Amino acid sequence: MKILVPATSANLGPGFDCLGLSLKLFNEVEIKKASLTSVSINGEGSDNVYLKKNNLFLSIFHGIYEKLNGKRDNFQFIFHNNIPLSRGLGSSSAIIVSAISAAYLMCDMKLDKQNILNEALKYENHPDNIAPAVFGGFVCSLVKDKEVLSIKKEIDINLRAIVVIPNITMSTEKNRQILPKFLSLSDSVFNLSHASFLTACFLEKKYDLLKFASEDKLHQLNRMKNLPELFEVQKCALKNKALMSTLSGSGSSFFSLVYKEDAQFLFEKMKEAFPHFKIKLLEFDNNGLEIC
Amino acid sequence: MKILVPATSANLGPGFDCLGLSLKLFNEVEIKKASLTSVSINGEGSDNVYLKKNNLFLSIFHGIYEKLNGKRDNFQFIFHNNIPLSRGLGSSSAIIVSAISAAYLMCDMKLDKQNILNEALKYENHPDNIAPAVFGGFVCSLVKDKEVLSIKKEIDINLRAIVVIPNITMSTEKNRQILPKFLSLSDSVFNLSHASFLTACFLEKKYDLLKFASEDKLHQLNRMKNLPELFEVQKCALKNKALMSTLSGSGSSFFSLVYKEDAQFLFEKMKEAFPHFKIKLLEFDNNGLEIC
Repeated sequence: MKILVPATSANLGPGFDCLGLSLKLFNEVEIKKASLTSVSINGEGSDNVYLKKNNLFLSIFHGIYEKLNGKRDNFQFIFHNNIPLSRGLGSSSAIIVSAISAAYLMCDMKLDKQNILNEALKYENHPDNIAPAVFGGFVCSLVKDKEVLSIKKEIDINLRAIVVIPNITMSTEKNRQILPKFLSLSDSVFNLSHASFLTACFLEKKYDLLKFASEDKLHQLNRMKNLPELFEVQKCALKNKALMSTLSGSGSSFFSLVYKEDAQFLFEKMKEAFPHFKIKLLEFDNNGLEIC
Repeated sequence: MKILVPATSANLGPGFDCLGLSLKLFNEVEIKKASLTSVSINGEGSDNVYLKKNNLFLSIFHGIYEKLNGKRDNFQFIFHNNIPLSRGLGSSSAIIVSAISAAYLMCDMKLDKQNILNEALKYENHPDNIAPAVFGGFVCSLVKDKEVLSIKKEIDINLRAIVVIPNITMSTEKNRQILPKFLSLSDSVFNLSHASFLTACFLEKKYDLLKFASEDKLHQLNRMKNLPELFEVQKCALKNKALMSTLSGSGSSFFSLVYKEDAQFLFEKMKEAFPHFKIKLLEFDNNGLEIC
């Protein structure tokens, strides 16, 4: 059995902790019952020996499996990871969602996406990555009484994402510490009105208005100062047909959205301007978590 | 010629300065060329002699008319006002929008709703009342370079509004002064995530989720303290089938949204509980400004 979970770009522009979307870049895990537990990691993280022993997936999987099944069994786990680690592309969310799904499936439980999402919230207390990881598309979400409320909209197939992935990692935890403790009333109103408008742009497919909606006064500035070249990334994207260009999650990646017909153009421009960064041209994912 | 502009409920829950909607309660003005200027006011404001002389409508109308036409002409103005004054139901917006429209029409200019909206922004610098007054429905809006960007969605015909109108007026300007100067990061994130989610609820017609989305930590508390009975109004509405219940604009009115089949029930409950307040059961308006 294979479980696929997509990469996600969250904290979308002004939409801190609530707006995110899903990209066609997947972490895949194969699981089989076995006489001995074994772990193999391919792709992202394969060179990290530490990951084999102290593995978030395994700890969540075993925790839930033992709770549901009353005992620990042995499995063969084969990971094929395409989501870069600690780059603001939802690698943790993908691990959490796939581990919960794997445990449920191995216990022959019915897979209910809403249940998985609520369970995932125990391991990541903001919903903006886990919600699109589970449902795909653009998702606006809210936490209420330890449950995730979410409203999803499919992203048009005529859009593409250009993701710039710098070669430095950023810790979400550390990046939370550099956020302002207080916001002025006007900055606060700026963000809530822009986040609402960004939501409306995605839900009503008014993508041409995203360039106005995607401005932020809450988290991006402080975080981008950690890697000032990101200001150049944003400027270059917006100059070259990007409809919006924002920090992905808490960074270090930068996410731009572009019409399909302009995607190759923007991709080439970004590669030319930032040859030392990894750059991906991706489709959007509208399905989220998949089992095959 | 008659111009009709609807009442509006703005600052919707967490959506300060950006989210608003339109109600089937209209101010109407009839205008005819005449040899002498005359003003008659029926309905709301008819007992206010001051309004005849120092009339916002007339000052906007004449200002624009003279600018466009190079001279002042005489008109007969007959107002039929149904929107209560200074109660947070968009009476000023209705006056502004109708005055601009009247001036354009009397100058034989083509009526373009977006132009009227941008012009209206010169007289009211937040767009959340003027946008639904012009377009009707639920509107999410943003100001950019002195223009209003807006995304409208029709409100389902199976919904009704219950508006509680206390017998005290509240000045928007004064009510702005009691807002907090700074918000904590968590309150700020609370409002932006709830405002986004409220937008999503209206755009995707997920009205059952409004009760979670409509909470606010920015403006309502301080303003409702001016008239503490509004806390009882809100409680009573939510206890009796309202899907959401929030301060309308900067008050003093309170807006509740309810399914059509529950509207009469809620209306009776509110009348019973608050016999000293005016209470209206209204349909939503999805057209905005109309000329007939």
